[in-house]
Amino acid sequence: MPTQLEIAMNTMIMIFHRYSCREGDRFKLNKGELKMLLQQELTDFLSCRKDPELVDKIMQDLDANKDNEVDFNEFVVMVAALTVACNDYFVEQLKKKGK
Amino acid sequence: MPTQLEIAMNTMIMIFHRYSCREGDRFKLNKGELKMLLQQELTDFLSCRKDPELVDKIMQDLDANKDNEVDFNEFVVMVAALTVACNDYFVEQLKKKGK
Repeated sequence: MPTQLEIAMNTMIMIFHRYSCREGDRFKLNKGELKMLLQQELTDFLSCRKDPELVDKIMQDLDANKDNEVDFNEFVVMVAALTVACNDYFVEQLKKKGK
Repeated sequence: MPTQLEIAMNTMIMIFHRYSCREGDRFKLNKGELKMLLQQELTDFLSCRKDPELVDKIMQDLDANKDNEVDFNEFVVMVAALTVACNDYFVEQLKKKGK
């Protein structure tokens, strides 16, 4: 039986492919696919930001090789960076509570 | 309600802290904690490798700042790298099947 961490790793793979296979290169996210993924899978993250250019900015930041598409490596870098930010917040709250 | 991706991100944070809080610095994994995490949470990954020095090697690779401990950023880099490797394997299998 897979562990929780293995399930989490598998989730990242499945979510990426659920959106990347919709249009064009099925192993990469174009801007429309990235936007849909962010809106549907990171709702809390996007909902607190009212910047209409956010998806463009994220695409530019993620797209390390400048092909206007996000591959799986670039996607995982985004998830890792967001997770580190969430962890920083979590640790800060723990320290504030003196735990 | 959190999405699958948000649950996966939360899982990485919770798993790390479940082991990091056991000994010494509660926000970092020492070698014993890392070994326990790998054995219990990445069983499939470890079970196919019979190298008794594997934990030492992983610790050396992950410990970017050479303090003999693995912080959350270093842990997330490991999970990201493993997930990319799993995805590469998954994509290769898909392409072999001609899907």
